Amino acid sequence: MTIDAHDGEVFRRHIPVRFGDCDPAGIVFYPRYFEMFNGVVEDWCAQELGISFRDMHLRQHWGLPTVHLETDFIAPSELGEVLQACLQVRKLGRCSLHVAMRLLGPDGGERVRAKLVLAAMDLRERRAMPLPTEVARQAARFRAADANDNKDEKGPA
Amino acid sequence: MTIDAHDGEVFRRHIPVRFGDCDPAGIVFYPRYFEMFNGVVEDWCAQELGISFRDMHLRQHWGLPTVHLETDFIAPSELGEVLQACLQVRKLGRCSLHVAMRLLGPDGGERVRAKLVLAAMDLRERRAMPLPTEVARQAARFRAADANDNKDEKGPA
Amino acid sequence: MTIDAHDGEVFRRHIPVRFGDCDPAGIVFYPRYFEMFNGVVEDWCAQELGISFRDMHLRQHWGLPTVHLETDFIAPSELGEVLQACLQVRKLGRCSLHVAMRLLGPDGGERVRAKLVLAAMDLRERRAMPLPTEVARQAARFRAADANDNKDEKGPA
Amino acid sequence: MTIDAHDGEVFRRHIPVRFGDCDPAGIVFYPRYFEMFNGVVEDWCAQELGISFRDMHLRQHWGLPTVHLETDFIAPSELGEVLQACLQVRKLGRCSLHVAMRLLGPDGGERVRAKLVLAAMDLRERRAMPLPTEVARQAARFRAADANDNKDEKGPA
Repeated sequence: MTIDAHDGEVFRRHIPVRFGDCDPAGIVFYPRYFEMFNGVVEDWCAQELGISFRDMHLRQHWGLPTVHLETDFIAPSELGEVLQACLQVRKLGRCSLHVAMRLLGPDGGERVRAKLVLAAMDLRERRAMPLPTEVARQAARFRAADANDNKDEKGPA
Repeated sequence: MTIDAHDGEVFRRHIPVRFGDCDPAGIVFYPRYFEMFNGVVEDWCAQELGISFRDMHLRQHWGLPTVHLETDFIAPSELGEVLQACLQVRKLGRCSLHVAMRLLGPDGGERVRAKLVLAAMDLRERRAMPLPTEVARQAARFRAADANDNKDEKGPA
Repeated sequence: MTIDAHDGEVFRRHIPVRFGDCDPAGIVFYPRYFEMFNGVVEDWCAQELGISFRDMHLRQHWGLPTVHLETDFIAPSELGEVLQACLQVRKLGRCSLHVAMRLLGPDGGERVRAKLVLAAMDLRERRAMPLPTEVARQAARFRAADANDNKDEKGPA
Repeated sequence: MTIDAHDGEVFRRHIPVRFGDCDPAGIVFYPRYFEMFNGVVEDWCAQELGISFRDMHLRQHWGLPTVHLETDFIAPSELGEVLQACLQVRKLGRCSLHVAMRLLGPDGGERVRAKLVLAAMDLRERRAMPLPTEVARQAARFRAADANDNKDEKGPA
């Protein structure tokens, strides 16, 4: 599968590589990529799924913690580059979102390719909960054509 | 002095408060403000002073490390807010830039007020160097009306 | 004043400079110093003042946010060095702690010198509160001989 | 496989969960776990494999970037907890190290379980290089009994 072979929408963001993201080798220190991912998920929730992280956490008392993650770091990213992040939904579970994230360099070449499983969690009970209906409905717009919600994939339902 | 009583330009940026910027009290963890500051200085250099951090560090082998810093944290900033950063020049030395930085909340109220002294440093020699002429010339556009380059202020010349 | 001219105790910690603390110039990215400071304050609270940040924030619902900060970055710190942090109290207010923090290199040379004002804050009311008596009593052990609680210093009482 | 079913050594570190590691939900913000991982790998290299990150990067001009990562976040970690990190080698390739990392809570329960592939990279040529012989020899001490260097696993050889 490639993220481009799809019918669904792709959520795209531009992310500059900051000085503070880079290590003594002059390239992105890999934990910073996950801060970038989290920012993309925040923007996606606020702009497309109808729920900001602020409202989610502070008013509705639920969250979308990442419970599983697989990442390939394909090529390094350098100070000053502007990366393009592309997010799609690979699987929509009752309590979880399986997301594909890619970061592309200025030339369109892949830098990072990741699969994330985000699970809806009731923050007061500290346990899994079903995705709110409207959130799931909006997330479905970003489902890749080859995604299969019944397909057996690792991670919570 | 207030940052607004000036003739010079003000460099402004919008900065969203991300989930990863916030602490268990739900407000910005203060070291993250300095990451924001550094991003503002990066953008200012690239967009207004004619030199990206990439070119500065990797091609020309000099940097603008912060050598002195004074900060008042006036009011907390919360998850999901979009802050406005305002940068002005308070003093232009031969080897240093004295910068005033303010972060304002969505209502225009002050959140953080800081003075930074940035010193030009030759990265290979690890010592101070004069600001490149063109950089100094562009920075001068952002000098506040009440700035006084001869005024005795703490920090390197 | 130097931090060593004192009768009171000095709280000391060793802090390794990690790969992830360093920037493309191979030296500590300055916002990381403030993460180090915060870790030192956490350890000091837990080990000397009788209150962990966990209990403070999650059980007792108060915090010690930094409200004012002055820092001199005297010399750069490099990947792999082990720094020594030294904390002393400069002023003990009713609602605030004025703290002096120094980071020394392996040769004892000063790298960073800072003054921090930490204010006790009621997290639910979002307003200043008096320091708990026992916390103030323990903090007083770390007061430098030349500290003067009546001296006029910037920051909240 | 479990990390404990082994003959080889296990590299163990204690890691406190700091205030700055935690998010508004009061638990570790997941990108901070990867900063922890990187610190563990740094300590392992310096203390067991005979090469500090400083010497590796700044003198010998090679690195050990993470090229592949799989992580399960099993249970949240809270402010003030001291985690135990356990590192073992799962596969020793010519140019790469496959590492298993676990973070355990104070009660021994699993919090995070990860597989990392670290690839030796020549920083000047920006390409893969064989692991230095002595580094590979020392790393072999940490190989799990059930590790199989010929086993087909994802990632570079």
